This record gives sequence, C-alpha cells and structure tokens, in this order.
Amino acid sequence: MLDLVSLRRDFHRHPEVGFTEFRTASKVVEILTSLGYEVIYGQEAIDGDSRRGLPSEAVLEAAYERALRDGANPAIVEKMRGGYTAVIGVKKGKAPGPTVAFRFDMDALPVLESTEQDHFPQANGFRSHYEGNMHACAHDGHTTIGLGLAEALSAGDFSGTLKLIFQPAEEGVRGAYAIVEKGHLDDVDYIFCNHLGVNVPLGEVHGGSYGFLATTKMMAHFYGVSSHAGASPEQGKNALLGAATALLNIHAIPRFSTGDTRINVGVLEGGTAANIIPAYAKMVVETRSITEEVNAEVENRVRNIIAHSAAMHELDYKIEVVGGAIPINYDVEMAELALEEAKQVEGFHSFKHGEYNSMGSEDASFMIKRVQDRGGKGTYMAIGTDIPAPHHHPKFDIQEEILPRSVALLNRIARRLLT
Amino acid sequence: MLDLVSLRRDFHRHPEVGFTEFRTASKVVEILTSLGYEVIYGQEAIDGDSRRGLPSEAVLEAAYERALRDGANPAIVEKMRGGYTAVIGVKKGKAPGPTVAFRFDMDALPVLESTEQDHFPQANGFRSHYEGNMHACAHDGHTTIGLGLAEALSAGDFSGTLKLIFQPAEEGVRGAYAIVEKGHLDDVDYIFCNHLGVNVPLGEVHGGSYGFLATTKMMAHFYGVSSHAGASPEQGKNALLGAATALLNIHAIPRFSTGDTRINVGVLEGGTAANIIPAYAKMVVETRSITEEVNAEVENRVRNIIAHSAAMHELDYKIEVVGGAIPINYDVEMAELALEEAKQVEGFHSFKHGEYNSMGSEDASFMIKRVQDRGGKGTYMAIGTDIPAPHHHPKFDIQEEILPRSVALLNRIARRLLT
Amino acid sequence: MLDLVSLRRDFHRHPEVGFTEFRTASKVVEILTSLGYEVIYGQEAIDGDSRRGLPSEAVLEAAYERALRDGANPAIVEKMRGGYTAVIGVKKGKAPGPTVAFRFDMDALPVLESTEQDHFPQANGFRSHYEGNMHACAHDGHTTIGLGLAEALSAGDFSGTLKLIFQPAEEGVRGAYAIVEKGHLDDVDYIFCNHLGVNVPLGEVHGGSYGFLATTKMMAHFYGVSSHAGASPEQGKNALLGAATALLNIHAIPRFSTGDTRINVGVLEGGTAANIIPAYAKMVVETRSITEEVNAEVENRVRNIIAHSAAMHELDYKIEVVGGAIPINYDVEMAELALEEAKQVEGFHSFKHGEYNSMGSEDASFMIKRVQDRGGKGTYMAIGTDIPAPHHHPKFDIQEEILPRSVALLNRIARRLLT
Amino acid sequence: MLDLVSLRRDFHRHPEVGFTEFRTASKVVEILTSLGYEVIYGQEAIDGDSRRGLPSEAVLEAAYERALRDGANPAIVEKMRGGYTAVIGVKKGKAPGPTVAFRFDMDALPVLESTEQDHFPQANGFRSHYEGNMHACAHDGHTTIGLGLAEALSAGDFSGTLKLIFQPAEEGVRGAYAIVEKGHLDDVDYIFCNHLGVNVPLGEVHGGSYGFLATTKMMAHFYGVSSHAGASPEQGKNALLGAATALLNIHAIPRFSTGDTRINVGVLEGGTAANIIPAYAKMVVETRSITEEVNAEVENRVRNIIAHSAAMHELDYKIEVVGGAIPINYDVEMAELALEEAKQVEGFHSFKHGEYNSMGSEDASFMIKRVQDRGGKGTYMAIGTDIPAPHHHPKFDIQEEILPRSVALLNRIARRLLT
Repeated sequence: MLDLVSLRRDFHRHPEVGFTEFRTASKVVEILTSLGYEVIYGQEAIDGDSRRGLPSEAVLEAAYERALRDGANPAIVEKMRGGYTAVIGVKKGKAPGPTVAFRFDMDALPVLESTEQDHFPQANGFRSHYEGNMHACAHDGHTTIGLGLAEALSAGDFSGTLKLIFQPAEEGVRGAYAIVEKGHLDDVDYIFCNHLGVNVPLGEVHGGSYGFLATTKMMAHFYGVSSHAGASPEQGKNALLGAATALLNIHAIPRFSTGDTRINVGVLEGGTAANIIPAYAKMVVETRSITEEVNAEVENRVRNIIAHSAAMHELDYKIEVVGGAIPINYDVEMAELALEEAKQVEGFHSFKHGEYNSMGSEDASFMIKRVQDRGGKGTYMAIGTDIPAPHHHPKFDIQEEILPRSVALLNRIARRLLT
Repeated sequence: MLDLVSLRRDFHRHPEVGFTEFRTASKVVEILTSLGYEVIYGQEAIDGDSRRGLPSEAVLEAAYERALRDGANPAIVEKMRGGYTAVIGVKKGKAPGPTVAFRFDMDALPVLESTEQDHFPQANGFRSHYEGNMHACAHDGHTTIGLGLAEALSAGDFSGTLKLIFQPAEEGVRGAYAIVEKGHLDDVDYIFCNHLGVNVPLGEVHGGSYGFLATTKMMAHFYGVSSHAGASPEQGKNALLGAATALLNIHAIPRFSTGDTRINVGVLEGGTAANIIPAYAKMVVETRSITEEVNAEVENRVRNIIAHSAAMHELDYKIEVVGGAIPINYDVEMAELALEEAKQVEGFHSFKHGEYNSMGSEDASFMIKRVQDRGGKGTYMAIGTDIPAPHHHPKFDIQEEILPRSVALLNRIARRLLT
Repeated sequence: MLDLVSLRRDFHRHPEVGFTEFRTASKVVEILTSLGYEVIYGQEAIDGDSRRGLPSEAVLEAAYERALRDGANPAIVEKMRGGYTAVIGVKKGKAPGPTVAFRFDMDALPVLESTEQDHFPQANGFRSHYEGNMHACAHDGHTTIGLGLAEALSAGDFSGTLKLIFQPAEEGVRGAYAIVEKGHLDDVDYIFCNHLGVNVPLGEVHGGSYGFLATTKMMAHFYGVSSHAGASPEQGKNALLGAATALLNIHAIPRFSTGDTRINVGVLEGGTAANIIPAYAKMVVETRSITEEVNAEVENRVRNIIAHSAAMHELDYKIEVVGGAIPINYDVEMAELALEEAKQVEGFHSFKHGEYNSMGSEDASFMIKRVQDRGGKGTYMAIGTDIPAPHHHPKFDIQEEILPRSVALLNRIARRLLT
Repeated sequence: MLDLVSLRRDFHRHPEVGFTEFRTASKVVEILTSLGYEVIYGQEAIDGDSRRGLPSEAVLEAAYERALRDGANPAIVEKMRGGYTAVIGVKKGKAPGPTVAFRFDMDALPVLESTEQDHFPQANGFRSHYEGNMHACAHDGHTTIGLGLAEALSAGDFSGTLKLIFQPAEEGVRGAYAIVEKGHLDDVDYIFCNHLGVNVPLGEVHGGSYGFLATTKMMAHFYGVSSHAGASPEQGKNALLGAATALLNIHAIPRFSTGDTRINVGVLEGGTAANIIPAYAKMVVETRSITEEVNAEVENRVRNIIAHSAAMHELDYKIEVVGGAIPINYDVEMAELALEEAKQVEGFHSFKHGEYNSMGSEDASFMIKRVQDRGGKGTYMAIGTDIPAPHHHPKFDIQEEILPRSVALLNRIARRLLT
C-alpha cells in the first residue's frame, strides 16, 4: 500500500516547474502502471502545439538531465522529452457505465523555499533539493492524492471508466488546454477538479468554486534594427520606443461597463548597451475579466496596440499566447453530490456549496468547459487545510492528514457515479 | 508719382493675414493697372488646391466683407473671393529679352500692435486698424517697394519681360507654392526675392542668404467615437489618447546624423466635456531640417506615427499639409550682380555676399527652385534697416528711408538684366 | 393660481446653463415673494468660493445682460450678478415642528434643441430662444414643480418649517456643494430630492435611488515657456509634452479591487502655432468610483501624475476642482413614506423602493449627506414620465401631466412630516 | 628584448573586459617591474569610488579566478581584487625635467570573435580563449606598444620623469576618470594618448584628433512595490509604468540650437511575471553633445525626467553614472611635434594635423583636460593601420608591423620632450 506521506515528501523534495515535471511524471507513470492502469503519456497525452509558455529547449533539456540523475525512469522520460509531461491513467470497470475524470496538477513554482526551522519541510528534512523551485501551491499533495485515488480504485470494482488526469504547467495556466485539445476530455461524463487550501480551513469542504477569471497571457516580441546611437541614430528602428508606447497604451485601455477587467504588463526587457539603438524588446502582458467575451475584447485591444506601436516605429512583431483560462461555471448538482459524500468521511465537519475562490485563474476551466459543452457535468472543489503562509510563499505548507481524507472523499465520489 | 511712405502707412493700417489680403491685393491691382501693366490675379494667379493652410470660409468671408467696407474695389476683390489673393504684374519691354521676376509678399501677422507712444506707427497715427493683426514683418514695406519698382519700370524702356509677383500668405510658408504650381515661374530667367531687416543694419545689403530650413507644417485630425465616460467607456474611441501618443512619439523621432532637424507639435486640441470620451482631436506639427531630404524623411516618420497612433485606438485620421518650404541655394552670380548695383545706390555702404539668415523658413524657396530647375538663376537678398524690436514683435518697425533706396536698387538690377 | 404648464414652457424657452440662471432665478424669487415666503438669494444663498466650474466673467456678464433684456427683474438679478443664482424659499408653519427641505435644480444644458416638427416644444412654440442651450434634462419641470409646491403650502397651515431650495448648476455637479457650505442644510430634519424621467415610465414612482457614483471633475493648467521651435527649441518649456504625459498616465491608473472606477481626460487644449513651443495647456479630468474613498484615492493619483508630469518638463501647474459629487445612501424610511403618499395620488400606479439610477452622479448627494451627518434623513426619488428621447438629447421632452401630480405628491409628503 | 608580436598575441588570447583586466594588468606590472620602473597599481593607482560602471562582485570574482588559473601572478592580482586594474609605471631620468605621460588602454569587448579562417588571429592560433570576449578595438596593441615604450626608455637616459599609464575600462568610457581623480595627472606637463586604426591607413599619422563628444552614461533604477495584478492591482507601485514614461520623455528632450546632441535609452528591463505588478525596473541612458555644457544640460533633463517619472508612480529611484567623457581640445603644438618626429620614423609617409575622429567618445579626454587645466599640454594621436573589418567587429584586426613603428614614434616624442 502506498505511503502517501512519503510520496508527498518525495515530490516536495523534487519540485519541477511547468513542462519540466519529468521526474514527477515518470513516478506517476510507474505507480499507475504497477496498479494495472492503462497509462497514456508523452505525445499521446498532450498536444504539443497547444502547450503555452513552453520553456526554452535548453531549460527543458537541463531539467530532463536532472530528472535522469535523480532517478527518473529513462525509458519513460524519453517519451516526455521536450516537455510532454502529461500523464493519464485509465481504468475500465467490470461493467459498462459513465466515464468519470479527476484532474491533478503536478507542477511547482519558481520560489526559493524557506530554510527556517519553523518551516515544517525544513525541520523534517524534505525541503526542496532544487534551489529556487518549490512546491508552494500544494500540487505535491494533489499528485499524491491522485495516486492514492488510483490505488483505491485499482481493482476496477465499478461500472464505467475512471480517468485520472495528471496535468503539467497549471501555474501560468499553460497545460490544461493542450490536454483538452488532444481530445482526452471528449468522452468524459463527469469531471472533478479540486484544490487544497485556498483559504479553506482543515475540516471544511466546498462543493464548488466560482470567481475564476477569464485570462490571456501573451508574450510580445518587437524586432527592430540596431544602430550606433551617436554615429547614426536615424538608421536604427528602436524596439524599446515601440514597446514603451505599447506598455503605456495597454494600461490605458478603458474600463468596461460590461465586466470588470484587469490588465498588466508584467515584464518588459529590451536593448543591449547604452550606445546602441535597441533592436529587440519583449513584453509579457496579462488580461483578465469576469467574462470570456470581455477578456477576448481586451485581448484584441492589446493585440491592436502592440501591432500599431510596432508599426509606428517600423518594427516587426510577434505575439505568442503563453497562458490562458476561462471562468468556471460549476454544476450545482455535482457540488451537492460531493458534499453529500464528504459528510460520510471522518474529519470533515463544515460543508459549503459554491464559494468564491480568490485564486485568480485556473486552466482546469478548459477541462470542465469541454465536458459541459459535450453534455457532461463538472465542478471545482476546495478541500480545506490550514496553511502557515499564503500560497506561493516560501513558507507555504499543507497538513498531511488531509491526504488520506481527500483520497477517501474522491473515492466515494467516484464510486457513487461509477454505478 | 507714388508717395511710398503714404502707401506703406496705408498698408500698415490695414494688415491682412494670409489669404485674406483682399484690400491690399486690390490696391496692388489698381496701381499696377493704372501703370499700364498686364495684371493677372484671382484664380488665374494662384492654384486653389495648392494653397496651404487656407483659413475657414467664414474667416475668408469676414475678411472679404471688411475689405469691401474699407475701400477695396468690389469688381476686383470679387475675383479674389475665397482666398485667391495673389497678383502678378507683367510688363513687356520694347525688345525681346529675358524674363526677370521679383517677389513681394503682402500678408500680415496675428500680432496685437503696440499702443505705446515710442512705437512709431502709434505716434504717427498709422497703427493697425485691425485689432490683433499687424504688419510686424515688413511686408507692408515689401509691397510698397514692389509698387515703387512697378512705377520705375512702367515705361517699358527695356528689353525682355518684367514680372512682379505679389504673394499672399508667406507667413506659415503657405502661398508661394500655389503660384509656382500655376506655372508663373516656368518662363522666368532671373528671380530676385528680398527681405527688409532680418538683423541687417541700415546701409548694408546682402547679395544672397542661406540657412533657410526645409520645413513642412501639417494639421492632423483624429476622428474617434464619443461615449459616456461613466456609463460605457468601452464604447468610445478616444481621440485624445491617439493624439497624445502621437505627440510623445513625434517628439521622440531620433536626431539625424545626416542633417540637423527640428520637430514641434505646436497645437493640440481635443475633447468637449469631462464626462465624454473625446471623439475628435487635432494637432499641428512642424518639421524642419537643413536638407529637403532629411525633412522629407522626418515628415514621413511623423505621418507614420500619426497613422499608427490613430489605428492603435481605432481612430480615423487625416493629415493636411498647411505650409512648407525648402532650402534656398542662391546663385552666387546673382548675388554679386546685386551687390555691384547696390554700390551705385546712395545710402548703401556695406556689402556682403551670401549671409546666414536666421529667419527660419521662406517659401520664396519654391520660386527660386523652380527657376533654377528650368535653367534660370535667382537669389534671396537682405536689405538692411535698423529695427526697434525683433520681427514679429508688437513694436517691430522699419526705417522708411529704405523704401526709395530699395526701389532704386531693384530698378538697377532689373535694367541691368533686361537688356 | 399658477399655470404650471405655462410656467414650465416659459422656463423651457429661456434655458440658462449653470450659474447663469439669472432670469429663471429671478422669476423664482418673484413668485416665492408673491406667495409670502421669506426668500434668501444671491450671496446669502450660496458660498461664492465653493462654487465649482464657474463660467468666465465675460460669460456671466453676457448672460446677465440677456436676462435683463428678457424680463428679469433688475433689482433682483443685481444681487445675483457674478453667478450667485441660488434661491431658497422659507415658510414657517403655525406651530413649531421639524424642518423639511425639497431640492429643485434650475439649470439647462449646452445642447442645440431639435427643430423637427415631431419635437413637442417645437410644434407647440416653446422651443429654446437661446440657440445652443436647452432644457434637455427636465430641470424646467423641476423648477415648476418647486413653485407649484410653494403655492400649495403657502398658507403655512402646518407645524414646522418648509425650505424650498432652488439650486443652480446641477449639470457638471457644481452648485449643490456651495449651498451646503453656506449652511442652509444644517438645520434640516428631512430632505427630499427628486428627478423626473430617468428611465421610469409615467405612473411609476421610486421612493429611493442608488448607484450614484462619487466623482471629481478637475481642470488642470500647465504653464511653460514659449520659444521658437526652429531657432531655440531648448529654451522652451513644453506644456503639451507635460499634458500628454499626464493624459497617458492618468488613463493608466490601475483598476481598484476595492471598488469600480472610471477615469477620463475629457478635454486637452494647448499651444498656439506650429513654430512655437507650447507654453500653456489645459486639461479636464473626471474620476468616478462607487465609493467616496476610492474616488478620493484616484483623485489623489491624478493630482500626483499631473504634478510630476508638469515638473518633469519644468512646468508650473494648477488644479481646480470644477465639479464633484458623492454617492447617495437614501434612508429607507423616507422612501417608504414617499411611496405611501404616492399611493394616495391619482395617476401613480406603480411603486418601487430604492432603484438603481443610471444618471451617473448627482450633487444633491452633498445635501442629503449633510442632513444625514447631522441626524436627519433624506431620499432621492424618481418620478416617472415617458420620454421620446434620452436625457441630454436634442429631442428630450417630458409629459406635462406629471407636473401637477408631482406637486400633489410632494405636498402630501411635506404635510405628512410637518406635523 | 620584448617580442612585441608574441606579447600582443598573448594579450589577444586573453581579452578581459573593463575592470576585469587582472591577467593583463598583472603582466604589465611584471614587465614594468623587470624593467626597473616604479610601479603603482591596485588601490594606489585608481580611485575606487570614481570608477564607473563597475561589474558586479560576482563577475569581478569570476574574472579574478580565471586570471589566476591563466597565469596571473597571485601576489600582484591580489592587490587588484575588486576591479582595481590600473597600472602606472614611473621612471625618473638622470636629471630634472618635465613629466611626460603616455596613456594606453587595456580592456577588451564583449564581442564573440570570428572563427573563420580568413580571420588572422584564428588562422594563426591566437583567437580569444575567452568565448564572448575579444580584443576588437586594438587595445591589445596599445598595451603592447606601452610595454615596448617602457623597454625603450628603461635606461632612464633622459631628463625629467616618464609616466606610463595603463588604463582599464576605456570601453564605455569608465576608467580614466578614476585615475585622474587619484591625482596621477596632476604633475604631468605633457600627455600623449593615441589610438591605432580609426579609419587611418597604414603609414599615416594624425598629430591630433577632434570630434569626440561629451557623453554621460547613466543607469537608473526604479523601485516600486509588487502586487497581484488580478487580486489587488491598486496596491502595486508599477516600476515599468514609471520607466516607460521616462523612456518616452527622455527621447522627447528637444534639439539644442547651441550644440548637436544625442540621446538613447539603450536598455530597459523590469518585472518578473505576467501576473505581478512590476516592482523593479532599470534603464541605461546615454547622452552626448559636442559641448560639455550642452551634454550637462541634457543630462540634467534626463535626471529630472527620471525623478518625476518615478514620483508620478510613487516609486523610489537611483541614478548611477556608469560612464562619461568630455570633448578633447588637443594642443596644436603637441600635434605638430608628434608629426615632426613621425617624419623621422621609417614606415610613416602621410602626416596630418588634427583630423576628425569618428570614434564617438574617449575618456582619455579627462586626462588631457586635467593636464591642460594645470598648465600642461596634450594631444590625441591616430596611428594608421589597415583593418579588415570595422572596430568592434568580430573580424577586426590590426597589422602587427605597426607595433614597433609606434614604439619608435612614441620613443622619439618622449626623448624630444624629456630634455
């Protein structure tokens, strides 16, 4: 039987950021395989071109090599090379029935973990081995729960099909869309996504969550021509003038009466030296809104501003979408079903229907939407744990007793539907 | 015989700004006619579409009515209605010979003339009757000299053809180009343009002048959509955001290593009320350079910036050229000829070849260029007069003894060439 | 007895914009006086320095002269000269009791009234005599209702004190604050403000209204130094560069998570000529928010941006507040009382409690707030009328049958409280 | 006797960029010491606080370690640790006399050297060992010439004092000022600086050079506050908004009629992630002008713009000067003396007086100015060599026969003055 705490601590020690989850995903493949699941991974699990915000090849390769050094199964990770780090475990039951999916995200964050003794992972010897990366958003717990659930249902003693989706790159909302595009949600009847913590205390469960914003994350590149700033400034095409103009005008996009919006230029980098007219600049832009339509309109305005800020200075440009999500409209029926089951699990004593979730954006939204678009149902649950510091903080941590309880809850939900 | 001082004072009293010189031009027509000149004026003298920075119809009409009230000949000004205020006097000599042209500008400035007693026109009763307009750049003197010259050569006792060009709207460099476009310079062999003052003291003559900058003056219009700034800001298309973006970026056009430049957004006006997204804005832009090529390149960049600043905010736009000039490259031979003749005129005692002229820009440049392009020669002379205050100043004035001397000089030049 | 329709049409014919309501206010004074009211007006009614967005002296004088020509009582308007156009009528009842106030606004809009025959005022001969001004927001009706109410209560057959406040310059939210600052609300126990129309149909009454935004309207002046753009650009201090920088950055003020906001630079004007570095620019800025606190913070950011945009270009600057309002939190008790009385008035058949009002901002908010701050109560009612075109539209109109009904309703409310 | 070619190639193989010239400088110290010079280096040679654009400590340490690995004398470089890489060799003659100084710069460039076979250093086995760094501006030759000159004058058979100044960090004009500030130029009577190449062909010598621009290179840091762009954008203080505003306005600084200028924002970098309001940005700005005064005025305007762009967005900021130079006004007498001596050296056959040098800026200017300010004289010579590619190009190279000829020329100049 799986030792959930050990498993979680192993993942915690080896935090891998979006699309570099080679070691984590290879462990997931090994365990699912040992539990008799059909395991889909690598290019069969995720659509390469639909991945957003993929790291550079050099970064992917370095992470790949590190995973190999740290015990990843070479035959397995070989298939994930280049950032194909999604894993899907499928178990068919003994009789026909519906398809029920659960989503678990695996990626870590570029956060430097605390070394203070009051930080539980430090005190207990499982602080990150990868300096600068950290599981500061509970995805180590999520992955562990997913594997615990796999074990609990490994006998296949149910009717229908179980689908366990282990997603890369949820941070930056970059990975889910590419799994959806590969078609893996098209046959799903029910989907349950969940998150530990998110300001919900231990013992409390929320059957649904709302308030997730539609968002688009873009990387814009401005391509100009360098020139000596003293000798021939007029021969340059100044990428930073274009980028700075875009930045100011993007922030000046008006408020919308049709829905609250957010806009941010999070990064701007350009130029090489004091005496060179800058030939290149890049910019990371994020838009959000409470509706998909308004977010799309704001995204269009951003694109138009970038296009003309570039053209104004005779620059070429390119815009890549590096992340995105849509709002989640959970099915009340699923939320209620989840709460009913939670009442049967020891350790849960507070039960709430759909609650506002302040996590910003979640690309599980694409999975839930796809299921709903094809007639299915889904929800996004919050499972409480007290946390000593906020999500994404160097001292973030979860309470490990929540791991078996969560497995028990999801197990009950699965069995309730797989009949 | 013409009383040059009275004539100049009459013009000074009735200062008419660019393209509204109805009264002035009608007097010029009357005198030239009385002296037996063939007189070309109205739509035959100037190409309507090539006029730049034409005032609004309302302004033109008001000035037209004023001219009628103040003694303009109705039959004559009728032909000038709508701003066709150029006059050309032609006198054929008794024998064939070259065509020699002189240019005189007639327009005044939107300057409020001084009422102080130490201001000569005030003290002597010929201050401007048109409050807010003033002959503060000596064009009253230029027009007077042109008529004096017409009288001096009215007998036609020379070989060849004399052409006296009385130009509207030199201020803002708006009128000369349209006379050139009408073809009146195409048959000219020699052209002499001149200016009184320009930091040259009484008694001194410059045979040529250089340093005039190529310039383009543009009016840009930005057309957006208004909307209530509180209720539906996203429905507006904000003309002022486009205009302000253009303004900053126009000023940020780089220095040119290939020639000194100047750029100015002299006027920006837009919007109607605090709570309305501004639907319209206009902008006046000026570019300059020491070369025609660099000025053209800067003008192109301004146009590109305006186009994309507008498109960035989904605005329409229009750019009108409202003025322009090119550098003057005078012919040294003409400058020397002028100085030789000046030495024969009493009152002149200091003689210089081509001198740097700090007047900025002059659209006589188009006339000289056209003559040179067709194999002729020309120059731009400076004829000295002490001035109590700078050009364009409310207390600017000239010394009236320069009027007959200038006539004598130009008469000698004309006769020297018309042989 | 007052002929309400004639009265309203007389006001409609003579629409006077904010702080120029000389004729209107003088008529109000005359009628209130004839009805035996104590009448406070001129500098006693309104605090001069607290008026916002006062027109120029020339505009005030021209309107003053016009009012005299059109029948304003010279002795009365003399005291209003310079824009002191508030009027307060006070009637003490026969016994002690509470003080009940009603607010009526008198100003018109700078809108050109329709001349089409399907426009009722045109068809019936009472279209605006003041070309370009129009009563397009029902204030002609409000003023009429106020006078009707004055008549209905002129006998003083009640307990307590009645206060009828006729306010100038509600448009642009400029006039109420200065009446409050003069102290006229300090002794009020109950205040009722109301508006005709506002998307409420004939026969319907709203006891309260909410949704009014806090707002500040500012005029910023930028003072630089002019210079010749060709000869010495470096000697100028460019007011338009400062203003354009402010404009872009004001629009870039971030969204607030603590309350929805609006920001607009509605007007920008600066500069004089193509070849002059602009020495002066002015800008009109409006901020709004659903809370007074957030609006104040946005206003502070606007002020800071203007200050440093000016200083960046070595400009001086000045910011004037030219308008402002705060949200209205009406007292439910007053709204209910109003509806109870409405049910007794023939013609009203639909009754709603506090409804969202999309009028944007209202400076009656300052009056209600002052009453509430001192322990009193108040509300802002909407009284329905069908309208053929939106408020502020050239074809806006009201149904005149609402005038006597409104008087009846307010009369009932007053008598209910004045006991 | 020194093998100049071997010495140059050794330097070429080990190119060290500004303030990391540990190996180069230690070789210079060793050779000067072996030739009997008094050698001043480390903190005695250069004022630490006056160094501009010092690399980070990590970069300095890495270069230090590399130098040790590549044969730098540990006892010597120990004193240079932290970027104190200036060396001054002093030789007193046998009799009293004037002090004559020569300046040689030692630093390389961050250029990736060509690996093509037609590139002489590649073909001859002395291409850079330090990938990404390259002697692409002849400073390897300059250092070699300086050591050859040291050898030629090592007997001290002259009257007066010889001072050989080996300067770090000429590229970016960062090192000379700190040597001047240490006082090493205060006792110099004559100074000769020179450059190989600079578009002068082999066999030609220029006695002086002009056209060097005054310049200031600044690094500006903007310090704000980060915040979640979705959850609480209003709590951030956006460093990129400040920086972009500064960038646009810096480029919009007007042209100066008092002297040609150049302005460039060469680098802008800020922000960390799409969903974080950027808390930090940095900017590299360069100003230039043909006069020190105009450059200082432009620098002041840049500083003012940065200060207020920061304050506008409630940011803190810091500006560091990371480089600078002033124009060079060489003494004609020195230039003529240099040419007279050049005529005596075989291999030189073309001799020019002061020629325009298009190298942009040179911080030898501070050394020459200090000498002149204290009554001495100096010049900046150009010594020709044909070059296969422009300065700073990956295929730049010099002709090695110029090394002994240059030594011979400088030796003659030194001996002429040291009498």
